[in-house]
Amino acid sequence: MLPPILDAARLRSVYASGALDPVAVAELIADRMAASADPAIFITPVPRADLVAAARDLMERHPEPNSLPLWGLPFAVKDNIDVAGLPTTAACPAFAYTPDRDAEVVARLKAAGALVTGKTNLDQFATGLNGTRSPYGAPRSVFDAGYVSGGSSSGSAVAVAGGLACFSLGTDTAGSGRVPAAFNNIVGIKPTPGALSTTGLVPACRSLDCITVFAATVGDGVAVRRVAEGFDPADPFSRPVAPRPLPASGLRFGVLEPGEREFYGNTETEALYDAAIARLQSLGGVPVPFDYAPFREIAALLYDGPWVAERLAAIEAFFSDHAAAMDPSVRAIVESAKGYSAVDAFKGRYAFEALKRRTDTILSGLDVLLLPTSPTTYTVAEMQAEPIARNSHFGRYTNFTNLLGLAAIAIPAGFGRDGLPAGVTLHGPAFSDEALAPWANALHRGLDGGMGLDRSAALPDESRVPAITETRIPLVVVGAHLTGLALNHQLQDLGATFLRATRTTPDYRLFALPGTVPAKPGLLREPGHAGPGLEVEVWGLDPASFGRFAAAIPAPLGIGKITLADGDCASGFLCEAHAVAGAPEITHYGGWRAYLAAIQA
Amino acid sequence: MLPPILDAARLRSVYASGALDPVAVAELIADRMAASADPAIFITPVPRADLVAAARDLMERHPEPNSLPLWGLPFAVKDNIDVAGLPTTAACPAFAYTPDRDAEVVARLKAAGALVTGKTNLDQFATGLNGTRSPYGAPRSVFDAGYVSGGSSSGSAVAVAGGLACFSLGTDTAGSGRVPAAFNNIVGIKPTPGALSTTGLVPACRSLDCITVFAATVGDGVAVRRVAEGFDPADPFSRPVAPRPLPASGLRFGVLEPGEREFYGNTETEALYDAAIARLQSLGGVPVPFDYAPFREIAALLYDGPWVAERLAAIEAFFSDHAAAMDPSVRAIVESAKGYSAVDAFKGRYAFEALKRRTDTILSGLDVLLLPTSPTTYTVAEMQAEPIARNSHFGRYTNFTNLLGLAAIAIPAGFGRDGLPAGVTLHGPAFSDEALAPWANALHRGLDGGMGLDRSAALPDESRVPAITETRIPLVVVGAHLTGLALNHQLQDLGATFLRATRTTPDYRLFALPGTVPAKPGLLREPGHAGPGLEVEVWGLDPASFGRFAAAIPAPLGIGKITLADGDCASGFLCEAHAVAGAPEITHYGGWRAYLAAIQA
Repeated sequence: MLPPILDAARLRSVYASGALDPVAVAELIADRMAASADPAIFITPVPRADLVAAARDLMERHPEPNSLPLWGLPFAVKDNIDVAGLPTTAACPAFAYTPDRDAEVVARLKAAGALVTGKTNLDQFATGLNGTRSPYGAPRSVFDAGYVSGGSSSGSAVAVAGGLACFSLGTDTAGSGRVPAAFNNIVGIKPTPGALSTTGLVPACRSLDCITVFAATVGDGVAVRRVAEGFDPADPFSRPVAPRPLPASGLRFGVLEPGEREFYGNTETEALYDAAIARLQSLGGVPVPFDYAPFREIAALLYDGPWVAERLAAIEAFFSDHAAAMDPSVRAIVESAKGYSAVDAFKGRYAFEALKRRTDTILSGLDVLLLPTSPTTYTVAEMQAEPIARNSHFGRYTNFTNLLGLAAIAIPAGFGRDGLPAGVTLHGPAFSDEALAPWANALHRGLDGGMGLDRSAALPDESRVPAITETRIPLVVVGAHLTGLALNHQLQDLGATFLRATRTTPDYRLFALPGTVPAKPGLLREPGHAGPGLEVEVWGLDPASFGRFAAAIPAPLGIGKITLADGDCASGFLCEAHAVAGAPEITHYGGWRAYLAAIQA
Repeated sequence: MLPPILDAARLRSVYASGALDPVAVAELIADRMAASADPAIFITPVPRADLVAAARDLMERHPEPNSLPLWGLPFAVKDNIDVAGLPTTAACPAFAYTPDRDAEVVARLKAAGALVTGKTNLDQFATGLNGTRSPYGAPRSVFDAGYVSGGSSSGSAVAVAGGLACFSLGTDTAGSGRVPAAFNNIVGIKPTPGALSTTGLVPACRSLDCITVFAATVGDGVAVRRVAEGFDPADPFSRPVAPRPLPASGLRFGVLEPGEREFYGNTETEALYDAAIARLQSLGGVPVPFDYAPFREIAALLYDGPWVAERLAAIEAFFSDHAAAMDPSVRAIVESAKGYSAVDAFKGRYAFEALKRRTDTILSGLDVLLLPTSPTTYTVAEMQAEPIARNSHFGRYTNFTNLLGLAAIAIPAGFGRDGLPAGVTLHGPAFSDEALAPWANALHRGLDGGMGLDRSAALPDESRVPAITETRIPLVVVGAHLTGLALNHQLQDLGATFLRATRTTPDYRLFALPGTVPAKPGLLREPGHAGPGLEVEVWGLDPASFGRFAAAIPAPLGIGKITLADGDCASGFLCEAHAVAGAPEITHYGGWRAYLAAIQA
């Protein structure tokens, strides 16, 4: 009765139809969890009776189906995030404690009607990207039990991909909220650092940790992120969200230049990356090869530099008494922190700032980056044979993200001939989370790859993320502001972007205004006039720049609305009628540029 | 022939009059430097011949007096900032080197016509706030040679206060660009961290260091800062300036609440602080007592926490070989860095972020802070008796500033009965440097304390910093947006503020546009028309709101320029001429409101 993948749109439709209610869904999920072939997904599943009781409680308090944003949606929680009454282990039994308060993010999701199904397995202390570093076993790729699930949010990703939860919470310091999404054909939403509270999270690197969302679709993940996010005064790293737009068309997306392509021999993943580039291009994006080297060098700071000391700082007292109880790889990484002095920490900061200067320069010429999520994957046996080096391969294109404070969305990129999925990740500037979503949504929906283990599932229309509306204000210019003419620099100085060249409708007349320096035309509309239509350009300005520009225009010119031959109507230069009295009409030239050429000839 | 204090306005006027030229001034300054009673001001004075040669070279290349922003203005440079060809000692002879390039900031000042007079003494490696930690001797307060000059920018402050330079460069990590300004009756401009390049600076704490400007007046200092500032791609801590406004009236200024007042028994300084509060209040500011405790705790992190490791990182190789050659206090401080691990460094960051959450909350309710610069002063003998504790007293109200990324301007606060000056400092948000200046200027000019050692000098009018101009864009509304009418809420929703009610000039005509909902008029200018002038209101909008508002206006209305009866000309509603064909003219009503009243009557 339940679909194989529990995406939010389908669950909501099941609830709306009355076919099932949250109590029935809770029972069915408990059945699925009991029947799961992978015993390593949950560290602490919520007992059936408690899950059903929570569903019943929701229905009593909010009987109307879908009357809360996440009404009756079951979700799994990575076991380094507190859920009141359930042990938090961080995949280290000796570390376990039972919190009496929910993490802030969990509390928000519960308040929105979501139901916790259990605490999921992870690479111990969220230190790893592969999913094998846990005494609770290694969750497996839902497509091949010989392969790793990816980590550190291993259980959370597999729970969604395997139809055991509608969505789940992961965390991401080096890539833990993205790599396992790639290996399990699901979406990983990694919010801008600080957008989601980390109160109630066992830190990995406190200055970088993000709580993330796994979901079947971008729309589902974004809906959860919106509920989960919000400023938390109790979390010193929490930041108020200040949304940042991205272009709605002509997205310049950075792609790996040939010398920086490293897939460790995995030609399947490389081909899927190329296909994703082609797909984003077909959606109107413009691929721009860029030098990944400084990003790679920033990535290296995370494990091979002083930032590893944050991992020790997070568990210092525990580590001094219980290091022997830890996973050997994790212990070795945390132990390495002891080699770094405070001087090293500041030197690391200086190295980072110097690299960031380089990446800032690169990013200033791009809107987003499109990178492979992980360049390759490995079997559990391969990973265990080389647990540090092969883990680091997974982080090649993820480790830099949080150091630079970026937002990222990992989406499926399809399947190789080996039957294993790969993923790609869109990275955008801080607080571009909302603006990234429509692009990630379109890129995902351009793929016919199903959701999670259900390769034939169709992505529901209801969870589509609509394209963002243009936040730049279009401005129609007709005279000295045209490209190459005397005042065009004013637009450039304000950061305006060229949108298109077009013409006005035929009912506009153009006049050469006498005595203007530089020479300027005056445009007037005369309904019924049948002229040639006049050459114009449309430029986009942010509201403040548009405001400053409009306020600086001297009489007799001003900003009105101009109708264009392509059917659009936008703000643009008009002239007061009194000022064209006696001015030569130049409408027949078809535009200011043609007139200038004619009089200069 | 030279005035006792070489403020820029007087020097420019001397140059403009032809009474002296830069060569003559160079000679006179060389005389003064040679005759100076304080032998500890300069570590490396520029030799007379070189100073005169530089002045002559300037006059050859730019013969017109005052033809460059800093034409012929002599300035001194703290000896941790590179000047090509002069040794940089950082007040540690064993550390000295001779750079072949100017620091970026020095290069900019030279290019603007300023002349370097010498390299000035400092607390070694800029580690100190008192001016006694140097093997080159301790510069003294210009008012009492028994008293310290303040530091670490000791020589630079005394050079300006003693009339040996027009302005000087200092640096400020913990307060070194402010404390010596207070002790010498001059202005210390401490820019927002990152606003001035630190390329060519010997670091103290690289992540915090600022180059600063000492000058006789706020106007002089600001003029120098404008020349010196600018983004430097070679400095990873350089940041593009993004000016931040402050209110032009009703400034909410934070003042120490009673429990946080600590003047170490110096009632003179306390009284001068209270007088400054009263003065700022009389200028229209609103004093708001606030809890300084979290700022104090942040201040403590700088010397009693891992940030001290930056001081070791800056000179690590030198320190390992030459620690014995260092000032004992400075050596002890740098040595203490060895006790901190990378874990401590990150814990310090966490402690800082938690405190910053508290200070952010406090600062969100204030525009600026007005604090004592230093709560007290000491004799050289007193300082040498307790070199660490008494130094820390000086930093009580300065150490937090750069950790929080703030801008600050230290200004004189007058003299105590002991004949010693004290100072106060205005702190504003990052990149409020420009907006702080008019307030600091007014606060300084409200005091009758002279400049530097010349207690009777009048502050020249020419260096006054004008009150900031309104950044809101005025918008003239004529119809449905007038107060109380149908669309006025659009202005309110955008946060617009009512500025004034007035009328247009008589050459405007008003028409009732047919078929508009809500009903709207159309305004057109007709040169020569002699109407009554039309009732309008002027509202102020920030640029983005103005832009959004202008972009949303439907045809046939738009935004042009409207001339007003009060002589102003501002952006406002105009109408395309074709739209008034056949519309009833209502000019004779004198305005839209009168017309509405008439037809509803």
